Amino acid sequence: MNLDQIFTSAQEAFLSYKNLSGTKKADFLEKIAEILEENRSAIVLMAVRESNLPEGRINGELGRTTGQIKLFANLLREGSWVEATIDPADPKRSPLPKADIRRMLIPVGPVVVFGASNFPLAFSTAGGDTISALAAGCPVIYKGHPAHPDTSKFVGSCISQALEKSGLPAGIFTHVEGGVKMGQDLVKHPLAKAVGFTGSYGAGKSLFNIASNRDEPIPVYAEMGSVNPIFTFPQRLGNELVPLAQNYISSLTLGAGQFCTNPGLIFVPKDLAGQFANAVSDELREIATSPMLHEGIAESYYKTIKELTLRSELTWVKVPDAAHLINVSPAMAQISAADWMADDVFQQEVFGSFALMVIYENEAELIDVAEKLHGQLTITLWADNSELKANSQLLNLLEEKCGRLLFAGVPTGVEVGYAMQHGGPFPSTTNANSTSVGAHAIKRFARPIAFQDMPDELLPEALRDENPLKITRQVNGKFTVEKIK
Amino acid sequence: MNLDQIFTSAQEAFLSYKNLSGTKKADFLEKIAEILEENRSAIVLMAVRESNLPEGRINGELGRTTGQIKLFANLLREGSWVEATIDPADPKRSPLPKADIRRMLIPVGPVVVFGASNFPLAFSTAGGDTISALAAGCPVIYKGHPAHPDTSKFVGSCISQALEKSGLPAGIFTHVEGGVKMGQDLVKHPLAKAVGFTGSYGAGKSLFNIASNRDEPIPVYAEMGSVNPIFTFPQRLGNELVPLAQNYISSLTLGAGQFCTNPGLIFVPKDLAGQFANAVSDELREIATSPMLHEGIAESYYKTIKELTLRSELTWVKVPDAAHLINVSPAMAQISAADWMADDVFQQEVFGSFALMVIYENEAELIDVAEKLHGQLTITLWADNSELKANSQLLNLLEEKCGRLLFAGVPTGVEVGYAMQHGGPFPSTTNANSTSVGAHAIKRFARPIAFQDMPDELLPEALRDENPLKITRQVNGKFTVEKIK
Repeated sequence: MNLDQIFTSAQEAFLSYKNLSGTKKADFLEKIAEILEENRSAIVLMAVRESNLPEGRINGELGRTTGQIKLFANLLREGSWVEATIDPADPKRSPLPKADIRRMLIPVGPVVVFGASNFPLAFSTAGGDTISALAAGCPVIYKGHPAHPDTSKFVGSCISQALEKSGLPAGIFTHVEGGVKMGQDLVKHPLAKAVGFTGSYGAGKSLFNIASNRDEPIPVYAEMGSVNPIFTFPQRLGNELVPLAQNYISSLTLGAGQFCTNPGLIFVPKDLAGQFANAVSDELREIATSPMLHEGIAESYYKTIKELTLRSELTWVKVPDAAHLINVSPAMAQISAADWMADDVFQQEVFGSFALMVIYENEAELIDVAEKLHGQLTITLWADNSELKANSQLLNLLEEKCGRLLFAGVPTGVEVGYAMQHGGPFPSTTNANSTSVGAHAIKRFARPIAFQDMPDELLPEALRDENPLKITRQVNGKFTVEKIK
Repeated sequence: MNLDQIFTSAQEAFLSYKNLSGTKKADFLEKIAEILEENRSAIVLMAVRESNLPEGRINGELGRTTGQIKLFANLLREGSWVEATIDPADPKRSPLPKADIRRMLIPVGPVVVFGASNFPLAFSTAGGDTISALAAGCPVIYKGHPAHPDTSKFVGSCISQALEKSGLPAGIFTHVEGGVKMGQDLVKHPLAKAVGFTGSYGAGKSLFNIASNRDEPIPVYAEMGSVNPIFTFPQRLGNELVPLAQNYISSLTLGAGQFCTNPGLIFVPKDLAGQFANAVSDELREIATSPMLHEGIAESYYKTIKELTLRSELTWVKVPDAAHLINVSPAMAQISAADWMADDVFQQEVFGSFALMVIYENEAELIDVAEKLHGQLTITLWADNSELKANSQLLNLLEEKCGRLLFAGVPTGVEVGYAMQHGGPFPSTTNANSTSVGAHAIKRFARPIAFQDMPDELLPEALRDENPLKITRQVNGKFTVEKIK
């Protein structure tokens, strides 16, 4: 099939799929999870081979993938996600009678999804973008990631199998392969209504530009990563220096540092900088080298670090071992906050386990840092409560710079739940009003419609007087599960 | 103040205003409404003079404006609009303990608003965009509309007065004046975080392009109008031909046809076309001529109609009177559905009381029409229930083309409530996922943030264990007003 045929078939499928009940959509999603589980060993084998990630990690990632699917299946069975909002008629209102208006979310249409190399399962073919789009009622055209072509194609075939077993049109999911040109053509296609993307800033931003400059602009939900700064404060850091250094290094080097929430930036108070540098450098020595996703990523890691070694502002806590074809060797440099603020290059993401330790003079300096800081997926604060209270102005500023603010733990390990926000101000994403992880991710692929004076029997079930789905709705502004009248 | 000073002062004000309680924000909004009411006679006088709209209409529009303000004040007092979502910690979860994650909406930052000429009050200085942005917690930089400069400035001063009386920073609202260049500079300013716009396609789309191509792209919520088609069906139209023709013409000519929901397009079955043309032409003869908003709009109305008179596909039900400097003379032409589909020029909005009556051969033809139809704010169906049921495929397609689907009445007269959706697929707006009227309009100027393991006392009130605001929250996926644990 050529692209026109693919999109036409997706659009045709959309016109029936969008009206499928939440229960039936949930059955279909669960069928995908079931088929993935049935093929667990084959999928894990393929994904390990193609990603160089350890089997344990990939096994866990498959669990995360089916867990996500189940979250969306539950969301569909419960049904309230459509934000049903009802303002009943008031025929007696004066001077003019009031019409009956009922609003809900409906799917937007065919969605183009680009998966990530660093999560061959959970952010790829049957990952969060695909599943949240399918859950919303949108067909998906998925472009397989060239870093794991076999895994991608195989998982794609599992989704197609689930469609077939569910008696649903094949056009609801299409797996395509290709390079940059194919990606651009997908985003340009007139029948595409939205784009989900996880990957580099360069690729994400270029798709955003294409989508914004179409005759009919469409939204691009591109999650482009960030450096996820950790701000440490003297009391807290002083009291727990070694365990915090351990936590830091283990988060930094997890999965060869290839997480979008990898904490590549840490702010340390001057007085503790030496101690902290020693502690992390002890930890770094313990880290076994591990292979990156592919040679291109390793090459780019060593190239960027080499460029950084030319910068006189940096002192190296740990210089990486000689460049390797595939293995990552963690690296860490330190810099003063003043120097860090002076050049945006120090805010760039170095994909892999590289950390920049920024030494600040005093907490007042952190205000300037916060103002300079680019948009981030996450920001973490390691501070005692008294330190948090003393730095309320900083907290207030940091809120403006991220999608998730952590007060304990590390940013890696993104929970999949109802409250997760995985997305933040530009340049961490192209759309800060959305999340790519968690239940709210479904909202990216839905839009509101209001029905005015529609006969009850023709209304979608979510909006009918009787509330047959027993969902929570907003009636005259109040949340309720009650029927109308 | 130059633009940099204006935005810097807005940003400074933002950092405190965003943390103001909902109650205090509501007090401030109500103070605006109060001051507007105190100055009703002066405002009405000015707006009538500057818009040529009748006093009754402007008086009503001021009521609508303060009504909108009260809706948002109520929304803030109630408080649940922040979509508080809480996934409590589970320290016992295995293999890994689960962190506490709490998500809510927070304001995005300074918002640039462009008002509409056709609503000098309700969609202008203190109109829906400004008020929903202020309600969200965002400062507003408002560019006065050159068609009603005095009204705009005066209403702006009322908002500034309300700020002063509420003891809030002046930077929360700034009224600026200027032309196209000023508008572009506002959208380009690095501290601007979102744009609200109501007006023409040309202006809205050009602001969208500027905003999308900034270093940091920002969303533009541009409501650019549409032709708001009405689809009539034989049984319903046959049974009520004269009253429906009356309704149609009164909606078409309301406010000199200068509503964004003006129904400029009506589809009529072939067999009733002659009768309907006679009935509307009788009605049109009764319509007194009325002045348009300004001479530029009148000139453009007559120019577009003149161009249309050169089209051989059109037959004129009513040719307009000779071009007038300011008064509109309604006009109506008819065309076959086949010809209508053949050229997109027939889908253009003619701002003013011009209608195109499209004659369709049979209901199958309407499927093709629906596929060709551009995105609309509204679509109206005048059909008996049996006709609706027989045309479910058409209904299904029309859902894809609009933000509000009406089954009775006329699209003009947009209710301001919780369920209203005023916004639709491109080109009617640049963001189909949002509304510019009704309670949900606040969501345009808010974005989600998640707090992970934040000490309860530091959390925003909306997310604290005790639920001190008594709002409806989603806890582990369930809607509840209960406290945590």
